[in-house]
Amino acid sequence: MTAAAIAAGGDDFDQLARDAVYRAMFTRRDVRSHFVPDDLDDSVLARLITAAHHAPSVGYMQPWNFIVIRDPGRRREVRDLFLAAREQELPAIEAERQALYRKLKLEGICESALNLCITCDRQRSKDSPLGRWHNPEMDLYSTVCAVQNFWLAARAEGVGVGWVSIIETEALKQLLSIPEHVTPIAYLCVGRVSAFAPKPDLEAHGWGKRLPLPELVMSETFRGAGEAPLKSAIEHYGKLKIMSRG
Amino acid sequence: MTAAAIAAGGDDFDQLARDAVYRAMFTRRDVRSHFVPDDLDDSVLARLITAAHHAPSVGYMQPWNFIVIRDPGRRREVRDLFLAAREQELPAIEAERQALYRKLKLEGICESALNLCITCDRQRSKDSPLGRWHNPEMDLYSTVCAVQNFWLAARAEGVGVGWVSIIETEALKQLLSIPEHVTPIAYLCVGRVSAFAPKPDLEAHGWGKRLPLPELVMSETFRGAGEAPLKSAIEHYGKLKIMSRG
Repeated sequence: MTAAAIAAGGDDFDQLARDAVYRAMFTRRDVRSHFVPDDLDDSVLARLITAAHHAPSVGYMQPWNFIVIRDPGRRREVRDLFLAAREQELPAIEAERQALYRKLKLEGICESALNLCITCDRQRSKDSPLGRWHNPEMDLYSTVCAVQNFWLAARAEGVGVGWVSIIETEALKQLLSIPEHVTPIAYLCVGRVSAFAPKPDLEAHGWGKRLPLPELVMSETFRGAGEAPLKSAIEHYGKLKIMSRG
Repeated sequence: MTAAAIAAGGDDFDQLARDAVYRAMFTRRDVRSHFVPDDLDDSVLARLITAAHHAPSVGYMQPWNFIVIRDPGRRREVRDLFLAAREQELPAIEAERQALYRKLKLEGICESALNLCITCDRQRSKDSPLGRWHNPEMDLYSTVCAVQNFWLAARAEGVGVGWVSIIETEALKQLLSIPEHVTPIAYLCVGRVSAFAPKPDLEAHGWGKRLPLPELVMSETFRGAGEAPLKSAIEHYGKLKIMSRG
């Protein structure tokens, strides 16, 4: 791609290229069940981490680090943290959903090719916290943008990613020797998969449904009515998108 | 795309499609300076919001709402909040960088086609907080994933997005009538642009540099040495990427 193409203000993306970007988003899944035992090439993992490194960050802070975890013993210890956390979380779930909750597969820590912990160094811009004086959590959000870049790039590479959020943060920090001023944002299971499910697991298992998008759009203020043409356009695009699934 | 293609485990992305996904990430910018006065079609905005709605969310919570702000008067009020916040943030910046800070253009609130506030409803899964018992902030992170989807889709559509984080949250909530249990995550300036800058503004203006990525990669634990082949692969890919800029 030439600098002139970049300067053309977006015309560097033709219809096929735009479709590819949307396809990565619409077919990305939180993968727990479809990992295969194949190794993941370092050349592929390098591209995924480079994608993460090109996320936006507040004040160009780039607060992230990437801990690659391959050791089976350490991964079993992380899985034990997950299992303990799941038992602790269960009572918080509505009684009539607890049986379903127990059936859900919520991690692929040991069977994925590798694990990756993406962390946020809270002190990396401490002398010039541009954009963080009012909203100090912005560095956490920047790191989440890196996670999402990683996830989408992985989808385009045919690599599955699952985010394990049922885990006790302090125990994870201890296990991975993460210092006090660093926050683990995402613990990811990463690897080749046999398939990407056509729907999110939690939808397929009846845990939830995709919310009707027009109801989530508001005009000028929270709950503000209006934007009827935009809402119609959203419904129209939703129908097109379903049809194009073939 | 057929269901069979999706089930093929990523082979549905050929080299061109993969390149498009990376290109959106590598050429995405936090846009402040290049907005043009053109309207943004509702059909385009509908696609961007649909992309955001397909972000991952903890427990399939989908905690986001999208407030579209077009009114010039309201936007001027938001800009006043930014100007006040910038004055408050300035003393936190290192003395020798304050002159540069003042010169930076950090928002395009009034000159972009529209503004969009993406919010997080903290109570949307309150009866079954799957994945949030230990880490209640996960819903905020889900909403950030939606922001990043929006941003990347926008890049592929030739639409610029700038995230304004220098703003006092409570004042913004009051201005947009956002209720107590809802957190504004991102206030975005959105619109057609004359160009996407070849580098991030903060790099072009000497505020910061992109960090050397291999130094951010660790093995097994924080600061753990190792992963030499992966670090070499990252350096190799970085060189390829620079050459391909043409």
